Amino acid sequence: MVQFRYDSVFSLGEFGLKKASFEAQISKLPKFLELIRSRGQGFIDLPDDAAMVRGIEEYAAKVRGKFDHVVVLGIGGSALGVTCLMDALKHPYWNELPKQKRKQPQLFVLDNVDPAQMAQLDDILNYKKTLFVVITKSGTTPETMSQYYFYRAKMEKAAGSIIAKKHFVFVTDATRGVLRGIAEKDGIPCFTIPANVGGRFSVLSPVGLLPAALLGISVKALMAGARAQRAQFLDSRYVRNFSFQLATIQYLLQKERNISMTVMMPYATSLGSLADWYRQLLAESIGKAVTRDGKKVHVGLTPIKALGVTDQHSQVQLYNEGPRDKLTIFIEVESLFGKNLTIPSAKIASPEMAYLKGVTFQELMSVEKRATERALHEYGRPTATISIPKITEESLGELFMLLEGSIAFLGEYYNIDAYDQPGVELAKVYTKKMLLEDR
Amino acid sequence: MVQFRYDSVFSLGEFGLKKASFEAQISKLPKFLELIRSRGQGFIDLPDDAAMVRGIEEYAAKVRGKFDHVVVLGIGGSALGVTCLMDALKHPYWNELPKQKRKQPQLFVLDNVDPAQMAQLDDILNYKKTLFVVITKSGTTPETMSQYYFYRAKMEKAAGSIIAKKHFVFVTDATRGVLRGIAEKDGIPCFTIPANVGGRFSVLSPVGLLPAALLGISVKALMAGARAQRAQFLDSRYVRNFSFQLATIQYLLQKERNISMTVMMPYATSLGSLADWYRQLLAESIGKAVTRDGKKVHVGLTPIKALGVTDQHSQVQLYNEGPRDKLTIFIEVESLFGKNLTIPSAKIASPEMAYLKGVTFQELMSVEKRATERALHEYGRPTATISIPKITEESLGELFMLLEGSIAFLGEYYNIDAYDQPGVELAKVYTKKMLLEDR
Repeated sequence: MVQFRYDSVFSLGEFGLKKASFEAQISKLPKFLELIRSRGQGFIDLPDDAAMVRGIEEYAAKVRGKFDHVVVLGIGGSALGVTCLMDALKHPYWNELPKQKRKQPQLFVLDNVDPAQMAQLDDILNYKKTLFVVITKSGTTPETMSQYYFYRAKMEKAAGSIIAKKHFVFVTDATRGVLRGIAEKDGIPCFTIPANVGGRFSVLSPVGLLPAALLGISVKALMAGARAQRAQFLDSRYVRNFSFQLATIQYLLQKERNISMTVMMPYATSLGSLADWYRQLLAESIGKAVTRDGKKVHVGLTPIKALGVTDQHSQVQLYNEGPRDKLTIFIEVESLFGKNLTIPSAKIASPEMAYLKGVTFQELMSVEKRATERALHEYGRPTATISIPKITEESLGELFMLLEGSIAFLGEYYNIDAYDQPGVELAKVYTKKMLLEDR
Repeated sequence: MVQFRYDSVFSLGEFGLKKASFEAQISKLPKFLELIRSRGQGFIDLPDDAAMVRGIEEYAAKVRGKFDHVVVLGIGGSALGVTCLMDALKHPYWNELPKQKRKQPQLFVLDNVDPAQMAQLDDILNYKKTLFVVITKSGTTPETMSQYYFYRAKMEKAAGSIIAKKHFVFVTDATRGVLRGIAEKDGIPCFTIPANVGGRFSVLSPVGLLPAALLGISVKALMAGARAQRAQFLDSRYVRNFSFQLATIQYLLQKERNISMTVMMPYATSLGSLADWYRQLLAESIGKAVTRDGKKVHVGLTPIKALGVTDQHSQVQLYNEGPRDKLTIFIEVESLFGKNLTIPSAKIASPEMAYLKGVTFQELMSVEKRATERALHEYGRPTATISIPKITEESLGELFMLLEGSIAFLGEYYNIDAYDQPGVELAKVYTKKMLLEDR
């Protein structure tokens, strides 16, 4: 089970929070839960959708063994969840593993329209053994649709126009959009993103789950973890509700101490992409110009990705000595794969390095995390720690739900719509306009 | 040649800069150049070191064809430069390419002490065909030394203790540190990081250049680019000096508009790691507690990595509508590899998507960049653009020097030591203490 600790924010004097101001928020929890329920957001109910899980598992079973490469065409919320699942739960050198060791397909997530990347992916792909998973909620995302058109033409050239269709599967809205129309016309399998599930909240919909299932990740276990944590997120007793606790310290640190950045710093290389996923969740949900009442506010918390221990050698100088504008949330894993790997005493001849003798790398990671936490505290900087026993499907499900829940609470604290993204429309309009004018 | 544009920061009214306040800084340039020279920092002179380049090229030629895998053991400044060079200049799926297409070794940069990563890298490595490049300036970095001890023992087991030595090459200080001692005792080739070159300024020393040369990257061309841009960085005419211009707008936007974050957003997937490299450079150099006169200030600019177009679907909502606390620096590439890749008109049946017909992906990237820039401007957010004609060794050399130069100027603006990192010592002390107490 995931744990959450943040006591130290109450022992920072003028730089931290007063216990009383935290306690003053607790009475808001039941009301917030009611409001959150009234928003009609589907991410809360996704883990109950047994029919969706069954459909995904059946499809994955049907295509098992047929493809050597799975290529996801998607951007933003259609890419970050699957990348996180792949990086967290599969071998760190998955795509480099020899086929006989992998036994499952390589996965490539094309979350950009960079021609260099697309042109050179051709040096890897055998089109006759490739499945394209095309993911766009609206069914009209220009980046994803461009890629789809490009690879559809490529596949028809490689496999013929009849066979080509068997190399695609779509994830999109139930009825709207261009992609749904193509699916119906061409008989391409098509999974549904529920209308009330936003892109950045869609990791536990077919958006994240379908590619995950194609790699042999257990969708059921992910959902079990999410359900367990959801019970806490919806619990009106604040001591059980980590999502509420996290949102409360983020909100108060910003309001009372002007701390406007949230650093997510996992001490596990494979959880780096969880921080990328969270970046979108926090930035797009809470970065808003107006409140629900139409008041201009320009609020937002800026998410920052950091990786322990790596970024101790890149970012921590700033976090310790720079402006007091950051809350650091560590993600700690109690038992990493390879935890018994040990620094061999016999190789250490120098007395200067003797302190490393016989230390396991797990221990080194853990000690460095605690040392960094302690230093930040002495510099008067707030930190919190989310810890999980191991990196598993269950823990990932828990983490997703804990963090999504915290965003829902932040939305209520700031009285903003955490589920829209009006600030990206303008650039979309200009893109279309410029492309038409360039013709 | 690299270009730099930032006119639009002067047309943002109350949210941007006044031309007059920029112009008031120009007279500082000659004095700053004098001060920068007086700091005795070696990064400025690296591109002149022909003997170093020759030594690296000779070593690379000697080992050419002998190894299938190069593993860099290093962290922070010992890892970020080489990762940037590899990602920018080699094939985007380099390690996945079949050996006969690659013709040069795979490269793995182990910039963490994560046991999961190390344990599972064993599924890839053939130790008898592996070269370990161990990089630590001090020669005592615990993370890197731990990895070295671990892999030295592994290699001796795989190849025997005599042969094992031939599978290592070191990059470290000329005289200090444990690693230098091991090199001398065991006759292991050892390249020198000049004492006056800090880790985060070391990409054009053997730290970045040796691994680059092992992958066939042209060290000479990198240096030529760096020299060309250095001439501008040291030029006392501000119109020629992009480094000064960049530092000036960063400094003034922070001072006058409280804009404390610098987003670096390349519109090229392969330049994502340049933003990671810059994160360390800006964060560690400018995030400081005290001025050179010992005054407590807690200054710092927080660097943020973003990737165009990808992060338009993750971060731009916040950048447009959230607090006005960010300067966005775009990196634009005029001609990307694969620039002729085109969205095939014949595949686009839907009128809704007709605006994509016949558009090249290069054009799509470029239009999306301009649309994002224009939207940010309308939202009253400052941006600047560094553009390069192509991603080549020369351009990378120019970019490194332009950005390093801008840091030198920022150090003078804030009157801080941009070259030390006192704020990381405390955690180091605790790490050592806890490891000894845990015994």
